[in-house]
Amino acid sequence: MTTISIIGSGNMAAAIGTRAAKHGHTVELLSRNTAKAQALADQIGEGATVGTFGATPAGDIVIVAVPYTSVVDAVAKYGEALAGKILVDISNPFNADASGLVTTSSAAQEIAAAAPESAHVVKALNTIFGHVLAKGTPLDAFIAGDSAEAKSAVAEFLESVGLRTLDAGGLPAAAILESAGLLLVGLARNGAGFDLALGAEVH
Amino acid sequence: MTTISIIGSGNMAAAIGTRAAKHGHTVELLSRNTAKAQALADQIGEGATVGTFGATPAGDIVIVAVPYTSVVDAVAKYGEALAGKILVDISNPFNADASGLVTTSSAAQEIAAAAPESAHVVKALNTIFGHVLAKGTPLDAFIAGDSAEAKSAVAEFLESVGLRTLDAGGLPAAAILESAGLLLVGLARNGAGFDLALGAEVH
Repeated sequence: MTTISIIGSGNMAAAIGTRAAKHGHTVELLSRNTAKAQALADQIGEGATVGTFGATPAGDIVIVAVPYTSVVDAVAKYGEALAGKILVDISNPFNADASGLVTTSSAAQEIAAAAPESAHVVKALNTIFGHVLAKGTPLDAFIAGDSAEAKSAVAEFLESVGLRTLDAGGLPAAAILESAGLLLVGLARNGAGFDLALGAEVH
Repeated sequence: MTTISIIGSGNMAAAIGTRAAKHGHTVELLSRNTAKAQALADQIGEGATVGTFGATPAGDIVIVAVPYTSVVDAVAKYGEALAGKILVDISNPFNADASGLVTTSSAAQEIAAAAPESAHVVKALNTIFGHVLAKGTPLDAFIAGDSAEAKSAVAEFLESVGLRTLDAGGLPAAAILESAGLLLVGLARNGAGFDLALGAEVH
């Protein structure tokens, strides 16, 4: 059991926070919108707290659950307050109709460039719809990152909330996971429906 | 039951041909290497035949099972012999260490540009390792293509050999499936092993 800090107070923050609290973690919510964060903390319960946006998060793992369009700005605003932290990037840098990506790098690599050097970025959870994650069922969670230690810590957290972690490789593989986010949306729209999650099975 | 033409005589041609023949389809193999194609036809059995490379394939569905590096050349060589056919592109345009793609478009779109206008390209089977496909177990098969009719015909074939078809969208989504090919390799190399196949589940 550990403290999980979540920057954001939307759909994904709610799904991750609820799932984390249900499995015994202490959740800290950090949002520019303090009222919304407090409402979410009350909803999550289990001792969830609201921290000060921009101050050093309480948890070693900080899940950055804001939309792609504001994620680099949020991380830059935090600056050195994120030194030494494990930053979990769950964002999807989709274009307007979610048919392609708007970056030739990856959101995760852009976040790594904006974060303190001592922080470690791990891509995760971008291939799971928030409402599917919220159901609490077992799911596969793809991750990518350059720090084996950080990936191991994130994997331990994900496994603790009922997800099976599958490692896709180093941080550049975040681009592959962001494309997998497009795949999820494409499958959902073309007949499979939005209760879908990607996975991988051994045969 | 239908005639399936396969251009190629390698690992994927063997896996697809064997699976098709086992489920009652007639397999025609087309390869520059006639001796290799004949050996594969003998191995597949069930009435599998060897056609003339470059001549009009017998099947309405033509699976182009040659490596990415020679696939556009092979399709161009066939030229008008592929008029009206459904071309199934299974190729993966990977770079040397399979960490990225060597095209900014997609192999499927490159093939469509090289094929007769009346041909319809469907991306499929590039996210399944040949040796996993050869096991004969049920698997998810992602497809993409612009012709709903062609996708429907390919889906019917794939379902007939025990695969569940999941539609990712139009032909540009082939790029997303080619990135999913990278994901498969990445997961395999980073702990999941090579008996892995991608899939999607409703939750």
